[in-house]
Amino acid sequence: MTITELLYKKRMGRELSGDEIREFVRGVTSGAYADYQISAMLMAIAINGMNARETVDLTLEMASSGDMLDLSGISGVKCDKHSTGGVGDTTSLVLAPLVAACGVKVAKMSGRGLGFTGGTLDKLEAIPGFSVSMEPERFIRTVDKSGLAIIGQTASLAPCDKVLYALRDVTATVDVQPLIVSSILSKKIAAGADVIVLDVKTGSGAMMTTPESAFELARAMVDIGNRTGRKFAALVTDMNQPLGRYVGNALEVEEALDILAGRAGGDLKTVALMLGAHILRLSGVCDTAAEGVSLLESRIQNGDGLKKFAEMVKNQGGDERAVYDTSLLPKAERTEEVLAEESGYLDGISTNLIGYAAKALGAGRERKEDAIDPAVGLVMNKRLGERVQKGESIMTLHTGRISNVQLAREYISRAVTISASPRERPPLIYGEVE
Amino acid sequence: MTITELLYKKRMGRELSGDEIREFVRGVTSGAYADYQISAMLMAIAINGMNARETVDLTLEMASSGDMLDLSGISGVKCDKHSTGGVGDTTSLVLAPLVAACGVKVAKMSGRGLGFTGGTLDKLEAIPGFSVSMEPERFIRTVDKSGLAIIGQTASLAPCDKVLYALRDVTATVDVQPLIVSSILSKKIAAGADVIVLDVKTGSGAMMTTPESAFELARAMVDIGNRTGRKFAALVTDMNQPLGRYVGNALEVEEALDILAGRAGGDLKTVALMLGAHILRLSGVCDTAAEGVSLLESRIQNGDGLKKFAEMVKNQGGDERAVYDTSLLPKAERTEEVLAEESGYLDGISTNLIGYAAKALGAGRERKEDAIDPAVGLVMNKRLGERVQKGESIMTLHTGRISNVQLAREYISRAVTISASPRERPPLIYGEVE
Repeated sequence: MTITELLYKKRMGRELSGDEIREFVRGVTSGAYADYQISAMLMAIAINGMNARETVDLTLEMASSGDMLDLSGISGVKCDKHSTGGVGDTTSLVLAPLVAACGVKVAKMSGRGLGFTGGTLDKLEAIPGFSVSMEPERFIRTVDKSGLAIIGQTASLAPCDKVLYALRDVTATVDVQPLIVSSILSKKIAAGADVIVLDVKTGSGAMMTTPESAFELARAMVDIGNRTGRKFAALVTDMNQPLGRYVGNALEVEEALDILAGRAGGDLKTVALMLGAHILRLSGVCDTAAEGVSLLESRIQNGDGLKKFAEMVKNQGGDERAVYDTSLLPKAERTEEVLAEESGYLDGISTNLIGYAAKALGAGRERKEDAIDPAVGLVMNKRLGERVQKGESIMTLHTGRISNVQLAREYISRAVTISASPRERPPLIYGEVE
Repeated sequence: MTITELLYKKRMGRELSGDEIREFVRGVTSGAYADYQISAMLMAIAINGMNARETVDLTLEMASSGDMLDLSGISGVKCDKHSTGGVGDTTSLVLAPLVAACGVKVAKMSGRGLGFTGGTLDKLEAIPGFSVSMEPERFIRTVDKSGLAIIGQTASLAPCDKVLYALRDVTATVDVQPLIVSSILSKKIAAGADVIVLDVKTGSGAMMTTPESAFELARAMVDIGNRTGRKFAALVTDMNQPLGRYVGNALEVEEALDILAGRAGGDLKTVALMLGAHILRLSGVCDTAAEGVSLLESRIQNGDGLKKFAEMVKNQGGDERAVYDTSLLPKAERTEEVLAEESGYLDGISTNLIGYAAKALGAGRERKEDAIDPAVGLVMNKRLGERVQKGESIMTLHTGRISNVQLAREYISRAVTISASPRERPPLIYGEVE
């Protein structure tokens, strides 16, 4: 069976068999197919779709296109979490130590962020000394013993996805459900967890701008995910403003530590605990998500969550004193305020533009090789729906040598709307899918 | 407007504007787009189609993507002819001198054949000394004065089509109506003729295997063609056996000369005269195709057609004596017969397999750089529906040094079916479209 035969079949809207999908993934991964043939298939899938059976097969073949992590050396249930991405979205750093403190193992491999701010790896690297590389054997041993480690994805994890992902970006086939689902799930499955919770974002800072499209994606991912033999659940959550108050790498670590230490609450904590609660439920630690939230809250109160975080920092070469004293995290050279130009209610925030502002300050990168400054970013002093007075600070910018403050201010001024009367806020958590 | 925006639009099934199609053709021709982006667009067009307006725009933009031949230096009506391709399909060599003898100018640029036997250029080059290259200026002068010249297509004719054509072949998007139509018509329009007649083949040796699909393509081409401001007509004709009795380069020239000299008739003559008649009708030389056939027949009877052919051969450096004495054409080293294995009626011929047999003998090429032997080929001694006796010759093979006779015989044995009773033959000319 040749690639042109496969292309013709999908062009005609016919279902590809398991063998045909295996052949396709092999041809992509081995380099046997030319990019122009792969992209023709991506377009055919974009238009003619893939049914659930095809998507499951594609996911599993992509997962096994490279190394499959064997986590059998770790006792107990192993969990993972994935977010479709947003701004100020630091749930992993909050929930990972808390669920580990409840006995569920977190063997997490993260990607490096390309976008507004860094990814989980970049945030962790803001902690002095923290290393995200670890030999597989030591990774397994560490998670088995300590319950938690977060390292960088190896290049050999789902290599088929790397090829497809790069081509999707340049052929207008990014927002294609079977391709999104197989891309996300294949990496999670290759990374070996038993229980995986997905956070599907919706709103001005999300790929899925409407709740309907987010639910559709969430349902597809959970459906396909459960068919692969792992346990999946998903939340659809709001991204109409940055999730946390802090946007930036060290700043987001600081907010996560504030939550773990019981010093802070807010939307980030709410979403992180609900995601963590579903992990506990799927892992059999509790029966309901509500029980899970209580359990996680208790690990904040008794300090076990923060201790687990410190243990991870120590295991990965970081300075654990920074966990207890956030003044040891990198600090921006200067701060300056963004003042409200009128009085009223904070009515709308273009989350994407806030993300661009953070990137302009140096918190995120456009290309892999771009430098980021761990210390820079912004703090939201006002949240959606809150009352502001003219001249009051709505945001504090943390700036550094590579910051383009002027550009960041322009983005923010376009991002924020103030209205005379308060408007109803969208829900923070739209619902769950399992 | 970026290529990904264009891709997204066509992916969503929306109509591309004239400006967008111009942008696409420019990007393809200039090399600004990557092959993987162009192939994604080909697949999107294959699945979501293009309406008549888009196809006209694509055709005209492709036509003007390179040199547009200016034939205004030639007085009178300029005509061209295109066949979708078949075996033993030498109509151009018959009709071109005949319509030129009726006063319609033939400024024909042909491609080199990739397939069963050579293209028109390869056939003409079988005439000793004949050259298919000519400076544009001399080409115009020759056609104006003598009424007829046939030369090779320049590389700068519709360069956009070259890129698209190569990618269609490897992305399963060959049989896509708007792409076929724009590919064929763009080259014809760039070549400058006023009147263009198309021969759309159907049957076992044609891209369009059913008459319905052939009519659909013919109607689309004539519709699109007429919208470009040129005059178009099309015939749908049979390709359930080689059109002429002779298959091979010098052999096909010989059959054409036999027809022009009044020594031979048959299907090749019938189709060539009907195509030529429509050229005369569209050119205003006569009112009906029937009148056109009579006119062309008269040019056979009075010898003007053969004289015009000889004049073309002389103008293009060839030995015109070969026109009057076909024994001067290249002759095969040996001939051998293919005998009927049973008695009955010649019931079916897989024309493609006969084409493969001719190629095995050395008459056609697989790749541009392959050598062909002008002298080799085959002669059909029996046509579809004719009675054959066991042991009687149904074909004569003309073989040479590069012939793989064994392979050719295998193809022929698979190609030919003999049945006990005669079956109704398909029509030779299914109909016309204008």
